[in-house]
Amino acid sequence: LSKNTQQLVEHPNLVNTFEDVMAMREAIKVSGRFQTEFLNKQARLDKAIEQPLNVPYPKDAGGGYTHEVHKNNYRLMYDAGILYQITQDPKYANYVKDVLFEYAKLYPTLSLHPEVKSSNPGQLFWQGLNEAVWLVHTIQAYDAVLPHLSESERETIEKGVLEPVALFLSEESPQTFNKVHNHGTWATCAVGMTGYVLDKPEWVEKALYGLDKSGTGGFMRQLDELFSPNGYYNEGPYYQRYALMPFVTFAKAIENNQPERKIFEYRDQVLLKAINTTAQLSYNGLFFPINDAIKDKGIDTIELVHGIAIAYGITGETGLLDIAKQQGRVILTGDGLQVAKALDKGQETDYQFKTQAFGDGASGNEGAFVVLRSDSSKKASVVTFKATSQGLGHGHFDKMGLSFYDNGAEILTDYGAARFLNVVAKFGGRYLPENDSYAQQTVAHNTLVVDETSHFDGITEVGNQHHPKLELFANDKQVKLASASIDTAYQGVGLTRTTALVAVPEENIDWVIDIFAAQSKTQHQYDLPFHYSGHFIEANFDYQAHAESLNALGTKSGYQHLWLTAQAQPSDEQQIRKITWLNDNGRFYSLNAVNSPNLEVLFTRAGANDPNFNLREDKAFILRAKGQTDYQFVSLLEAHGEYNPSKEYTLKSKSSIKSLSYEQQGAVHMVYVERDDNSQFVIAYHNQSGQSQSFVVDGHTYALNQTVKLFKLAKK
Amino acid sequence: LSKNTQQLVEHPNLVNTFEDVMAMREAIKVSGRFQTEFLNKQARLDKAIEQPLNVPYPKDAGGGYTHEVHKNNYRLMYDAGILYQITQDPKYANYVKDVLFEYAKLYPTLSLHPEVKSSNPGQLFWQGLNEAVWLVHTIQAYDAVLPHLSESERETIEKGVLEPVALFLSEESPQTFNKVHNHGTWATCAVGMTGYVLDKPEWVEKALYGLDKSGTGGFMRQLDELFSPNGYYNEGPYYQRYALMPFVTFAKAIENNQPERKIFEYRDQVLLKAINTTAQLSYNGLFFPINDAIKDKGIDTIELVHGIAIAYGITGETGLLDIAKQQGRVILTGDGLQVAKALDKGQETDYQFKTQAFGDGASGNEGAFVVLRSDSSKKASVVTFKATSQGLGHGHFDKMGLSFYDNGAEILTDYGAARFLNVVAKFGGRYLPENDSYAQQTVAHNTLVVDETSHFDGITEVGNQHHPKLELFANDKQVKLASASIDTAYQGVGLTRTTALVAVPEENIDWVIDIFAAQSKTQHQYDLPFHYSGHFIEANFDYQAHAESLNALGTKSGYQHLWLTAQAQPSDEQQIRKITWLNDNGRFYSLNAVNSPNLEVLFTRAGANDPNFNLREDKAFILRAKGQTDYQFVSLLEAHGEYNPSKEYTLKSKSSIKSLSYEQQGAVHMVYVERDDNSQFVIAYHNQSGQSQSFVVDGHTYALNQTVKLFKLAKK
Ligand SMILES: [Zn+2]
Ligand SMILES: [Zn+2]
Repeated sequence: LSKNTQQLVEHPNLVNTFEDVMAMREAIKVSGRFQTEFLNKQARLDKAIEQPLNVPYPKDAGGGYTHEVHKNNYRLMYDAGILYQITQDPKYANYVKDVLFEYAKLYPTLSLHPEVKSSNPGQLFWQGLNEAVWLVHTIQAYDAVLPHLSESERETIEKGVLEPVALFLSEESPQTFNKVHNHGTWATCAVGMTGYVLDKPEWVEKALYGLDKSGTGGFMRQLDELFSPNGYYNEGPYYQRYALMPFVTFAKAIENNQPERKIFEYRDQVLLKAINTTAQLSYNGLFFPINDAIKDKGIDTIELVHGIAIAYGITGETGLLDIAKQQGRVILTGDGLQVAKALDKGQETDYQFKTQAFGDGASGNEGAFVVLRSDSSKKASVVTFKATSQGLGHGHFDKMGLSFYDNGAEILTDYGAARFLNVVAKFGGRYLPENDSYAQQTVAHNTLVVDETSHFDGITEVGNQHHPKLELFANDKQVKLASASIDTAYQGVGLTRTTALVAVPEENIDWVIDIFAAQSKTQHQYDLPFHYSGHFIEANFDYQAHAESLNALGTKSGYQHLWLTAQAQPSDEQQIRKITWLNDNGRFYSLNAVNSPNLEVLFTRAGANDPNFNLREDKAFILRAKGQTDYQFVSLLEAHGEYNPSKEYTLKSKSSIKSLSYEQQGAVHMVYVERDDNSQFVIAYHNQSGQSQSFVVDGHTYALNQTVKLFKLAKK
Repeated sequence: LSKNTQQLVEHPNLVNTFEDVMAMREAIKVSGRFQTEFLNKQARLDKAIEQPLNVPYPKDAGGGYTHEVHKNNYRLMYDAGILYQITQDPKYANYVKDVLFEYAKLYPTLSLHPEVKSSNPGQLFWQGLNEAVWLVHTIQAYDAVLPHLSESERETIEKGVLEPVALFLSEESPQTFNKVHNHGTWATCAVGMTGYVLDKPEWVEKALYGLDKSGTGGFMRQLDELFSPNGYYNEGPYYQRYALMPFVTFAKAIENNQPERKIFEYRDQVLLKAINTTAQLSYNGLFFPINDAIKDKGIDTIELVHGIAIAYGITGETGLLDIAKQQGRVILTGDGLQVAKALDKGQETDYQFKTQAFGDGASGNEGAFVVLRSDSSKKASVVTFKATSQGLGHGHFDKMGLSFYDNGAEILTDYGAARFLNVVAKFGGRYLPENDSYAQQTVAHNTLVVDETSHFDGITEVGNQHHPKLELFANDKQVKLASASIDTAYQGVGLTRTTALVAVPEENIDWVIDIFAAQSKTQHQYDLPFHYSGHFIEANFDYQAHAESLNALGTKSGYQHLWLTAQAQPSDEQQIRKITWLNDNGRFYSLNAVNSPNLEVLFTRAGANDPNFNLREDKAFILRAKGQTDYQFVSLLEAHGEYNPSKEYTLKSKSSIKSLSYEQQGAVHMVYVERDDNSQFVIAYHNQSGQSQSFVVDGHTYALNQTVKLFKLAKK
């Protein structure tokens, strides 16, 4: 069979093949996850398609009436296409046909959408992005019902709407189609899949290599540039899971139509890595909420359900089933069926979470997003260390920002995005003004703020040009460590942060060690916030609570949104300043900060200058040093004890850290920790790779034969 | 066999009988919940009894070292006793014997505990209460190991410690032993059970009827007075579950030793009702947090595990197994075994939650705690209406306070107790000062505050003398309603509140209707707070946010602890004032308040004048009217829509209520509701019991043949 002839006889052949369909037809006859999903879908769809057809003239912007109706239409067509294939009931095919007939009448009458605002205009929708998503779904529906249609029906639909939309998205929108950007991926996916179905190999070529087929634009170039070598997407996981959808969808269609392209092998399996990385960048089912991220979004997102299914279909890795099981839903595709069957048989094994530095940028050398995990289980405690590049317009000014997760909860927190998705009363459901004025600002993060100004002066374009350098990454059994530096976040101030996760169950050690150094020839104010979740329990120092009235901490760069609730002046009474809080997860957390000269402590809560109550009232402690040139914050966050009000016991509510200090001996950095029981530890590390080092404590010499190591010293 | 002889041969015979033990010995041979619990318990105990014996001279108060050691000892002895019976391994019996030998040496040397402070002194412990709890456990352990002991060993233990403790708790502590109070119940339980084991029927008689055996004190009197006829305990469920323990324990021992007393039949089965009521007074597994209550406490509390097991042993009601299953733990008793076996077989049926007025006081006529449920399922939405008496020292000044629960969450909230149980840094783990100054005060609750002063001027003794009157209680399919009044909370001001839960799924109605009337001849300021959980979304009126600085709302009665975050002046622009918030459960809630003359709205958040950050920063809206004589707050809380950021959709984020009003026609009270879709409803009720009533709307007459009814009117 020639390729053309083959396409004429075999449908569907995009994400699903005819073989997939045959298997699905069998699968719905036996009880299990797949049958359940099928019956649910069918019940919902049968109700929906009884409604009168509704293909209105485009009028409203995102969230508005016609926008939502057209979105709903492509979803219903997509489902109807699949149900037609599975059930062979013509009512589903007729539904798709009838809707597409309406679109075939409407589309030729359209010009640019009346609400067009973006550089990516649409006709059915205010944005070309939505138009591409429409076609990605619709072409799959059409492919599914094609065998049911007469030649003339096909002609009507293809000429009336499918070809015009594809041409609009490609030839008529070259700036988007050729762009190495997520919008471009949706467009190339839509046009390329349409090319397969309508037997236009030329469209497929353009989708893969750009309108001029040179490879400077198109899907392959996007694959080259939008993910780093280990599959990290530079806007972070919240947008990564969205970006993933057109990649895996088109790739699956390419694989089914042109397996010789070995698309999933491409670039050392970068697509499979991207799927896996999306799952890796989560804790307790939710994505790490760096940059503009809705914090409720997690691995059960539909995009990752598709991604995991496709990855499982290719690799058969049973760890992926663990993620699929947590997703709690299966999809009606060939891969979805394989997942459902495997889960029905209980074939899942524990997904292995990894301590990993996810290099950022196309070559993976523009900084990194570092994830330190105490072990590979879901239950591990996790440090994230954001030494990434800016992440474009959705990026936050949080170079080398830190988060900590433990016992199922976020402990050192990231605000995420200030947004109530689709809640019209909250700024139309869009990003709130406070997203710019607070959530993106440096002070909203657990990283250093110099002179009450955000990194790069809060200018995205400047941020886009720079990134931190990952200096050190080490994955020892007991200590996971990363170190990074940047000297472009502030003019004339170099920043270096080293963070280590130390977990030794047999020693009751659950520590995050953090050393943040600023270097400058001129004097500055250095603020290091620790945003935390929980209820303040105690501090080991005197503080002045602002009990009778509250005022904002500052006037700009996010400081205007922080109420100053208490503060402690410099005092050399304690060797360490200790603050303890209790998280709802029932554990205590104590921040132990070396009481460096002039160290002040501020207690804050978000919500000032927020007249519409758009912000969550999250709390923070800010370590502050004024008028400093070179300065160093040395901290140890200890997780300890248990509060169990239900069973009425409380264990170890007091931090055990008695003493903490940092010093350097030659190339060796040493953090010295002493506990109340007089046990003593040194975390030693160096970055002279390959060289063995040593250091001396109390006259005793210790050899350091690896990058980082925890030493237990003899008791005093 | 004479009774004496029988006691000499059959052990144990308190909560467990020899027959129970025989069944347990079989049960541990087969896998299931009971075996699992047994193996866990054995593993923990085997480790614990390897430690050196530790019976220190009493020195510390509650929470201190010797206190905790003696508590731990009785728990270990109790477990060892049971394990001895089940395994017949003498090491467990020897452990109990060895510990009791130590106590037999120690106890005779003791006088009053050095930290004694209460009116209920102890010797081993600072409080006699703990001493009684010690004996309740210890006598069960002794009973279990008795067959293993020689005559002389028994003599040593009984004379050295068991008899002296029992005498101390009875003859030497008459004020506690005879008291109709929870402390008295523990004492009578301890002494009575000791009487059974040591064959001293006289002690049993005194335990049952007081030291003079007149019945003016003792266990039976406590049974008569501490619970209302339907099993409500007047301190509320948090203390009820604690009070329950000695009642069910001693009752079970009485049943096993003297079944002829028919103790579980007593007072129309009041003990079984008390167990059931404890379970009824919960939502989503947690107790309603009225009065001093730790909000994390729920039906999995060990006291209710015992209670449910005993109730199931007597009644075999399979609904109790539903509670037992949620408790997630079984106990090593005969009843616990029955529960475990039934759960292993999956015999549980849905527990039926009820709409019920729990009459307060010994006769059930001192007000009531009213629970309105939309249906009998766990998932129902629930209104609680606290028209109870004061609840003694742990009572809050919240007459006719309202709470609302929906979709798994607390929506209109009660602060509960200000306390971090056992967290030493937080005021020794005791009730915090803010418990008095805020949590108990009226303004911390969803009920009316007159002139910024708490009910009864915040004086418990005054509160103890009064209670509201339950005027009306109706349980219709669509509308559950309660009405109560009190004229003693404030001098010269009568308060009447009527609250209805209206739930009609087919009409999308999920409403709480609330009419709060104050009547006075003189002018007052009336404040009606609605404490809520969630994020503020919008209001339909202008308000002035205190964006740049915050101050406390007042100076006393809890007002000093509220930050005033925004306020809205009176305005007659809207017919209803509407405030919408979004709970973490994903649902929107809109408070629609009739915009009565001079109605102001205050937005508050707790945390002012709280220099140690002891309070949670809970939020409230306060409806305020100044300078009023008779005044009426009419509100409708609507639950609506869904926010699903994970699946990226938002439904019905806007409240549908267009109009709301209240009027009276003769004896008929009418709440009129109109929605955006022009549908109109009247909730009509009256308290002329037995009489049929009617009312007129738009010239149409409607007959009201029951206490309350929802009418759907024709659309306008
Ligand atoms: Zn951020
Ligand atoms: Zn309360």
